[in-house]
Amino acid sequence: MSLDTLFRPTSIAVIGASRNREKIGNIIVRNLISTFRGKIYPVNKEADSIEGLTAYKSLNDIAGSVDLAIISVPRQGVIEVMEDAVKKGVKTAIVITSGFKEVGEEGAKIEEQLISIARKGNIRILGPNTMGLISPDYNGTFAYANVTRGEVALVVQSGGIGAYMLDWAQRTRTGISFLVSMGNQSDVKEYEVIDYLSRDPETRAIFVYLEGVSDGEKLLDTLPEVVQRKPVIFIKGGTTGKGAEAVKTHTGSLAGSYDVFKAAIRTGGGILVDDLSDFLNLTRLVTSSEPIKEDILVVTNSGGHGVLTSDAISRSNLNMIELPSRIKDDLLKILPQTSLPKNPLDLSGDAKRDRYNDALKIIQDLDCTKLVIVQSLPVVSCSEVAKVLLNFKGKGIIGVTMGIDEESALRILESASIPAFNFPESAVKAIKYLTSRPIPRKKIRVSQPINSAIELVKEKSELPDYDALKLMEIYGIRTPKWGIAQSEEDAEKVADNIGYPVVMKISTDKPVHKTELKGVIMNVEKENIKEVYKQLSQISKRVMIQQQLSGLEIFVGGIKDPAFGHAVVVGSGGIYVEVLKNVSYGIAPVYEDEALEMLKGSKVHDMLTARKRGYDEGSLIRTIVAVSRLLVDLNVKEMDINPLIVNEQGAFAVDVRVVLT
Amino acid sequence: MSLDTLFRPTSIAVIGASRNREKIGNIIVRNLISTFRGKIYPVNKEADSIEGLTAYKSLNDIAGSVDLAIISVPRQGVIEVMEDAVKKGVKTAIVITSGFKEVGEEGAKIEEQLISIARKGNIRILGPNTMGLISPDYNGTFAYANVTRGEVALVVQSGGIGAYMLDWAQRTRTGISFLVSMGNQSDVKEYEVIDYLSRDPETRAIFVYLEGVSDGEKLLDTLPEVVQRKPVIFIKGGTTGKGAEAVKTHTGSLAGSYDVFKAAIRTGGGILVDDLSDFLNLTRLVTSSEPIKEDILVVTNSGGHGVLTSDAISRSNLNMIELPSRIKDDLLKILPQTSLPKNPLDLSGDAKRDRYNDALKIIQDLDCTKLVIVQSLPVVSCSEVAKVLLNFKGKGIIGVTMGIDEESALRILESASIPAFNFPESAVKAIKYLTSRPIPRKKIRVSQPINSAIELVKEKSELPDYDALKLMEIYGIRTPKWGIAQSEEDAEKVADNIGYPVVMKISTDKPVHKTELKGVIMNVEKENIKEVYKQLSQISKRVMIQQQLSGLEIFVGGIKDPAFGHAVVVGSGGIYVEVLKNVSYGIAPVYEDEALEMLKGSKVHDMLTARKRGYDEGSLIRTIVAVSRLLVDLNVKEMDINPLIVNEQGAFAVDVRVVLT
Repeated sequence: MSLDTLFRPTSIAVIGASRNREKIGNIIVRNLISTFRGKIYPVNKEADSIEGLTAYKSLNDIAGSVDLAIISVPRQGVIEVMEDAVKKGVKTAIVITSGFKEVGEEGAKIEEQLISIARKGNIRILGPNTMGLISPDYNGTFAYANVTRGEVALVVQSGGIGAYMLDWAQRTRTGISFLVSMGNQSDVKEYEVIDYLSRDPETRAIFVYLEGVSDGEKLLDTLPEVVQRKPVIFIKGGTTGKGAEAVKTHTGSLAGSYDVFKAAIRTGGGILVDDLSDFLNLTRLVTSSEPIKEDILVVTNSGGHGVLTSDAISRSNLNMIELPSRIKDDLLKILPQTSLPKNPLDLSGDAKRDRYNDALKIIQDLDCTKLVIVQSLPVVSCSEVAKVLLNFKGKGIIGVTMGIDEESALRILESASIPAFNFPESAVKAIKYLTSRPIPRKKIRVSQPINSAIELVKEKSELPDYDALKLMEIYGIRTPKWGIAQSEEDAEKVADNIGYPVVMKISTDKPVHKTELKGVIMNVEKENIKEVYKQLSQISKRVMIQQQLSGLEIFVGGIKDPAFGHAVVVGSGGIYVEVLKNVSYGIAPVYEDEALEMLKGSKVHDMLTARKRGYDEGSLIRTIVAVSRLLVDLNVKEMDINPLIVNEQGAFAVDVRVVLT
Repeated sequence: MSLDTLFRPTSIAVIGASRNREKIGNIIVRNLISTFRGKIYPVNKEADSIEGLTAYKSLNDIAGSVDLAIISVPRQGVIEVMEDAVKKGVKTAIVITSGFKEVGEEGAKIEEQLISIARKGNIRILGPNTMGLISPDYNGTFAYANVTRGEVALVVQSGGIGAYMLDWAQRTRTGISFLVSMGNQSDVKEYEVIDYLSRDPETRAIFVYLEGVSDGEKLLDTLPEVVQRKPVIFIKGGTTGKGAEAVKTHTGSLAGSYDVFKAAIRTGGGILVDDLSDFLNLTRLVTSSEPIKEDILVVTNSGGHGVLTSDAISRSNLNMIELPSRIKDDLLKILPQTSLPKNPLDLSGDAKRDRYNDALKIIQDLDCTKLVIVQSLPVVSCSEVAKVLLNFKGKGIIGVTMGIDEESALRILESASIPAFNFPESAVKAIKYLTSRPIPRKKIRVSQPINSAIELVKEKSELPDYDALKLMEIYGIRTPKWGIAQSEEDAEKVADNIGYPVVMKISTDKPVHKTELKGVIMNVEKENIKEVYKQLSQISKRVMIQQQLSGLEIFVGGIKDPAFGHAVVVGSGGIYVEVLKNVSYGIAPVYEDEALEMLKGSKVHDMLTARKRGYDEGSLIRTIVAVSRLLVDLNVKEMDINPLIVNEQGAFAVDVRVVLT
């Protein structure tokens, strides 16, 4: 069912409309009066009229049809109102009322009841616990904000953040196309809203503040298409233990793993920023029409600012261009005698408006971002230079205004849609986010397990170690030569077959820390086999004997994330998994190129290729891909290969743990 | 010689004073007229009077004595002026003129000449290439800024950054006690200035922007005492390759190693920030009298803001306090029905002024920082809440104002000296910097080498590998059992003595990559000794045989930094030194507790103690301390032990390279 009646209704009823100007139910009516051209029906059991409009005792007293009901009655009245709405044939509802899932079990029950009534009556619901919705057609929120129409759509899972962003938009004259406060997302989910907004011709970018994800798999499915229409920028609240706790009592959602969230947004081609100021800074770039490149030329009138900006650019792995000699020659003519034209281009502390203009004329056609840092000095003000920059609009100009009149310079640039910042670091960070947008990838998860694998895992929740190794082999993942021994004689036979030296370890049905139990003996030669078997058999009669391999120890694992489903993990292995924490996540199934990106994202790629020792990275890539498919095929709950030994011959799964759902 | 006549002169001459109001030489005179109570003597070859003051043809035409000469003539006239100054008996000079060391060799020569004349005449010089100096007594710069007197001292090695900070101070009404633009630091150095300012009773904190360090060892020596008087906050320009390049042409200094710079500032007890906005944010905390703790209680009216702030606090490893139950009981009485008192304390979106006041009354005496985030919502404005906060001044209050009137709220708090920010992340970062100030340590470097060590290194610039091992042993650093063989028979004898298996490698007089030359064979047993010797002897007849040890491979090294002298380095060893980059630097000599901090600062401590395997961290600590002393004793240019194998028995230097100065 389309969300058109939510975003573009022709008639709106406000249930819980109030005459008291301090009440939410009154502010909503006033916001509608000043923005909405369709019919507005205030509903209030006692009033005859509200803010000059005829008021109705109930929804059913309204003669005309109602596209959208905005409900702002106390919690105990919500169910009755929803029943009325079903009778009336209302199409969509925004439930402002709070006190549901976010406050505990009792609230969660009422929320379920509410949704079930709405479903039966074919009513879509935004909320509950939402601040409402602003579209180009109406302001259905209780925010006072005087919203400027524009190109930025905001989707927020916190009314407070929504209100803040409206204030911010007003202060910085940023135009807003939509503001959708998601609330508890009991019916309408973030992925539907994002998809809808991406089709809106007035919207140029979508900014999303999420705490929990209500349907991660659908979001994964939608995002790759959405980002081809518009850039989508995410910020996540509840990324740490403490933040996640705060989320629970705030919107009642589970924060989930931030690592997997990051992988999911990257897979979908979204931009994920670190904090609110990055979020706001990025709007400046996204709403401008300046072509932004990762190749940068810095223009400044202060050496120190040039130094700090170059530092920031290097740290972000962006590129400082070299000036072509033709350009240098031209610049020499306009620079003071002792200045050398280079990048950063220091126009010198005595540069006035004209020198800026002359320099920009010379460099304007270079294919790069021109990051112009201007600070007000006795000879020039920020505003003067800002005006010069207007002449070069569309040439990849970004302004950084620093000094006494920086705010007015900022406004001059902003009103011409030239991005402007107060610190070079903010500009550089925003450029980095925008120019390193990941390629969107659509994940299609089809479970089609190999028959022998089905056989192996049938009716099991965990696999004994030897079956886990067999499962690897079924999926084409290599293992060191191995065998199981149940006696001393057995042991020697198996080991002879493998070749010396071997590793001997206890073989168990459930995963245990074999090393900590002293159940692993390395470097066993033929003459010691029996003795070692005897020793190990005191812990477990079943002993696994493996070919002893040397190489780099890698960790490859998989989990089923509650929000986004299966994800694969790779990092340094052995006992340093927890210590080094250089791990990368990928949403399953991953393809070979993604697996390579994961290796580069952790330090594993660098470790494999250090000093050209020819370790087989390709084999590791194939292993990651295979694990990601196995996860999906068998609906694995969690698994890890640790270590996977990678050397010149390939990648070999040594110890494997698999937990099935 | 004291810097009093520089900072507190009683008479000032301006050489190069001008009648043209656009010229530097005029602006300086006007700035002096409006700030300086002593005698001002403009010097100009042609003018009779400048800005109403009698002008003099030359310094020697002045009848009275001159404490300070501010020189702003073209470069070609500077030498003559300095000669005049010597004749006149001037005590100090500020040389504004630029075009010296920073533009190349020719400039550097004139600078040397200038300094040599000044030295002979007992004149101290600030500059050249400086923007000048502002003290509570006078404004001797060519910045127009109308400086508000206050408590923050600024020391900058870039006129542009200085000008920017003056503008910033004016905009944010931050009071300035001193601004010292260091210029090329040909005579007066940063350490002297910082030391002088730290003794000024009006100054509460010193902010230092440095590009290069002119005398690192003196800075190291001074800083530990200075930071006991005042916090000193550093920012460094030229921390990356590109930034460092920009530095060279800007102030002519060498940027040096940023890692060693960081270690030096930490050793001295300074605070080093990442970028300019951190620098400015920190002034808000440093100039307030609020007690700031790393234990934090967040108070907010928006759940989303509470979530994001908690995230930022967790990420910074600061501590969210638990509310005591007595406090919770009291809060329950004032919060809305569905709210639970916890941290972050969400006062709810309908909180007005009174609820803020009631809540703050309840929590005011808790021993923690109260981070109050207020965003303007329809029921409350930032400014209203800011006024409430004033009632709790001195209770550890920090305000974060977000929303429509955030700037005026900020001003309300700032004028009461309550620190205020626009983003929670900025507040949290500033708290982190301030609460994690390192303990200052004074380094006393006395070279007193052991006789046998002197003997060993005598007249050598590099050591053969066996002498390098001997040097370790002299310094109490353990080595695996080892010996040198020159023949097959020799080899077997040596190896028998060590015990099997052994490692055999070519022995060289100069450091080479033995592994890459295939000159290292591991796991050699008795039966293979001769064969392996034969093989290796094709590369080098001299072969080293070592006991084969297992354990964690660590890198311990040392360098002589051009600015700060000897520093010791520790990190992951083996072939991953360059890949993992988890290294820590320490200024030599380091003590045991510093060595432990270094291990914790890199990931080595976590690696050693992973899974309680009892690797001997103490022995590694002793090794680091020993290396740091060896560096100083023998004036080592660079050295590394890679790997140093650490296991349950101790730390053993396996391969050692030493380059002497």
